[in-house]
Amino acid sequence: MYIRNEDTICAPATVPGTGAISVIRVSGPEALTIADKVISCRKGNISETAGYTIKFGTVSDNSGAVLDEVLASVFRAPYSYTGENSVEISCHASSYIVSSLMQLLYEAGARAAEPGEFTQRAFLNGKMDLAQAEAVADVIASQNAASHRIAFKQMKGGFSSELRSMRGELLELVSLMELELDFSEEEVEFADRTRLDSLLEKIIAHVSRLIDSFRLGNAIKTGVPVAIAGATNTGKSTLLNALLGEDRAIVSDIHGTTRDTIEETLNIDGILFRFIDTAGLRETDEVVEKIGIERTFKKISEASIVIAMVDLTRDFTSTFETIREIVEKVDFETQILIFLLNKTDISEVNKNVIIENYIVSSIDDKVNTFDYTENPKNRAKIIRTSAKFGTGITELREYLADSQRDLLTDSDTTLVTNQRHAQALSDARTSLLRVREGLASGLPTDLASQDIREAIYHLGSIVGEISTDEVLGNIFRNFCIGK
Amino acid sequence: MYIRNEDTICAPATVPGTGAISVIRVSGPEALTIADKVISCRKGNISETAGYTIKFGTVSDNSGAVLDEVLASVFRAPYSYTGENSVEISCHASSYIVSSLMQLLYEAGARAAEPGEFTQRAFLNGKMDLAQAEAVADVIASQNAASHRIAFKQMKGGFSSELRSMRGELLELVSLMELELDFSEEEVEFADRTRLDSLLEKIIAHVSRLIDSFRLGNAIKTGVPVAIAGATNTGKSTLLNALLGEDRAIVSDIHGTTRDTIEETLNIDGILFRFIDTAGLRETDEVVEKIGIERTFKKISEASIVIAMVDLTRDFTSTFETIREIVEKVDFETQILIFLLNKTDISEVNKNVIIENYIVSSIDDKVNTFDYTENPKNRAKIIRTSAKFGTGITELREYLADSQRDLLTDSDTTLVTNQRHAQALSDARTSLLRVREGLASGLPTDLASQDIREAIYHLGSIVGEISTDEVLGNIFRNFCIGK
Repeated sequence: MYIRNEDTICAPATVPGTGAISVIRVSGPEALTIADKVISCRKGNISETAGYTIKFGTVSDNSGAVLDEVLASVFRAPYSYTGENSVEISCHASSYIVSSLMQLLYEAGARAAEPGEFTQRAFLNGKMDLAQAEAVADVIASQNAASHRIAFKQMKGGFSSELRSMRGELLELVSLMELELDFSEEEVEFADRTRLDSLLEKIIAHVSRLIDSFRLGNAIKTGVPVAIAGATNTGKSTLLNALLGEDRAIVSDIHGTTRDTIEETLNIDGILFRFIDTAGLRETDEVVEKIGIERTFKKISEASIVIAMVDLTRDFTSTFETIREIVEKVDFETQILIFLLNKTDISEVNKNVIIENYIVSSIDDKVNTFDYTENPKNRAKIIRTSAKFGTGITELREYLADSQRDLLTDSDTTLVTNQRHAQALSDARTSLLRVREGLASGLPTDLASQDIREAIYHLGSIVGEISTDEVLGNIFRNFCIGK
Repeated sequence: MYIRNEDTICAPATVPGTGAISVIRVSGPEALTIADKVISCRKGNISETAGYTIKFGTVSDNSGAVLDEVLASVFRAPYSYTGENSVEISCHASSYIVSSLMQLLYEAGARAAEPGEFTQRAFLNGKMDLAQAEAVADVIASQNAASHRIAFKQMKGGFSSELRSMRGELLELVSLMELELDFSEEEVEFADRTRLDSLLEKIIAHVSRLIDSFRLGNAIKTGVPVAIAGATNTGKSTLLNALLGEDRAIVSDIHGTTRDTIEETLNIDGILFRFIDTAGLRETDEVVEKIGIERTFKKISEASIVIAMVDLTRDFTSTFETIREIVEKVDFETQILIFLLNKTDISEVNKNVIIENYIVSSIDDKVNTFDYTENPKNRAKIIRTSAKFGTGITELREYLADSQRDLLTDSDTTLVTNQRHAQALSDARTSLLRVREGLASGLPTDLASQDIREAIYHLGSIVGEISTDEVLGNIFRNFCIGK
């Protein structure tokens, strides 16, 4: 299906900017000879060098002036990342040197790599399957222990082998059914229907578990969504700053977030949370207010955790209204609600008791399961805070981390983190459910086996047994250059 | 003077962010054994591995879970960047992996490197002198051919050897003079005064040439300063955008400049220009206006090139005033003046002729050398532009590049680019001028030889023959981490 790559590609493998060194990757059949054209070594040359060794050499520009002194790490097919001959050139991290060196490599016969093309070649050369290749990008993007563990496991083939064993079972099933088909004239029934049905049930359950894991997997990968709701000036920004603390700058740098976005991610105890500051637009005119409230409610409904900020210095009427609105919107079956009674530093002493009672009765009105204690299972919690002075912030952080502790413990279970995989699994389940239904209602074996083949196809598409150029294009387009 | 470093240091050597790979550097007496504690190789271990070879291995966290698969490049003292045992660990460029790996290295006995500490060790271990070490940072920061060439030459010791030969000559001189001193009772005169004086003259000329080269060297390193002057809304921002074109984003990324600064750098034909948009604050109240004009004039006086924007749609009175003010401020001996008659697309047809005549006569009033032709030596040029439609921009770019062509041609002359070096050279010259004066006025030989020793000291401080911890601290503090 694939044509073996005949050309040699190159790209910087490190982030541009003022670091100490930059690494440029060259891969393909001519990688070593192209490196020889560009790099002069004191003794011998790169194409005569053994794999897994390093050559020191100089790179000169077309005028003969020395551009840089470099280290060239040599890898020989198939013992390289791509499975091809490869050279990793380590040079000084100057933008001028990197771009000049790239230019020299082009002139020597290499072309610029597309995003993800090194990994795509690793896939095409059988070094990894498609699910593993996709996990490479996730490993690079992972920011905490949980997301790293899932991505790394997938990259090392954990998910793929699980899929392989399912496909093996389905293939055995289908071959039994098709054997029966060949002998249909003779009314033979090779496949035991009861065994077949229980095998199908088992696989459907497995596929369903994987599909269900996507919600969790996605939360780990992109962060548990936490909506911060409340009227304007209740201290939402101050709370965000208090929560982010000194980590803020670091988190922002890594994630590429800018200060004007209203989402911030933060690791608490190895769990990634994504805080969404819902816009508090109440104090503007009516049309804008309406849009603001709708947007706030949409964000609240999408979050796993809702933090409702109550400003203890406000009057009771508006405070009660806010509380009622939020309680109304939260789904206590699936969401966790945390009330922060903020500005304890400047509020009247007994006000918080009255408000706490109001919260409890509001929730009681809606659901009967609310118990104002420390039990996180009740999905409601009240914490008194002063975001300004940091009071209650530690308690909040601990509560947040505790509520999501299950994200860390399932270390041996596979979690699906990729939308494409979840879709393929869902398609496979649809086919398998149709098989099971068909067998129960006496559908001809040839139609049932066709549906099983379809399920096998969908499972196979995850690891890339079947894949089109379009699918590959979509996957690798989102990689960074040089990977 | 220096204590040999007993501890082992580590730091990421690549820029943080989502690239394909990150490299962590470990250097010091325990580098190989520390790497062995952190990296498990399938066969053998790192401390038994030969230099210039690569080991593949896995890194596990404290719970035993695999953190990453890495490549470890092994370098053995003294054949490494620092001159010590070193390992460069190449891992997936995930912030989580890099920080976890750093943590494991700390636990294994390495400590975090200070900025520039690897290069400082290379200096302390005699792999390079101080001027070479400083050039490493310049090589990394260089953005174009000219600044790269100077920095690279300095890094490879070109400047240092020039200084060494000067110091050699001065040492010979001083030893002759001091020999004479030893025999002073016998009235012997070993040093030929005429020869001594001509040698001094030659060295002073050399030192002076190096000091003078700083202006040029600094322009190459930080960019030729170009002030863009003119009233508000004459199209200065549009001009900047037209000049920067698509390069703008790239230039800004590399330089770390933000959009709210008023300086932008741009490479034109390999020459770095630094455009300074002088604030046009005329249309506000009087006090602010005064500050604005002062600031504008200060920037104009510091620039090598002044681009004066004239808006052809304005009335003659204010246009003539602007022209007079700028002509008044420009120093035609040292600065290049370019008048852009802007908005040709919407101005009256003959207006520009009148304004050109006014410019010519204004300059004629001030200096008599002005010749309104194409000759760049006249240091004044008139270009008709429409910044909005890009008219005249190519002509402007070519004129700018041509005017600074000498920055590219002096490829064999040493240029001083470092303020510290310029200062030391200046101090050396002061001492040498004192020697020469003293000898002419019959000063005792012992005093003269003392002054020569001082000059030798200053020249030696450039390459670090004499250096204090404070000096070293100041130099390496400005390096990036990992270099």
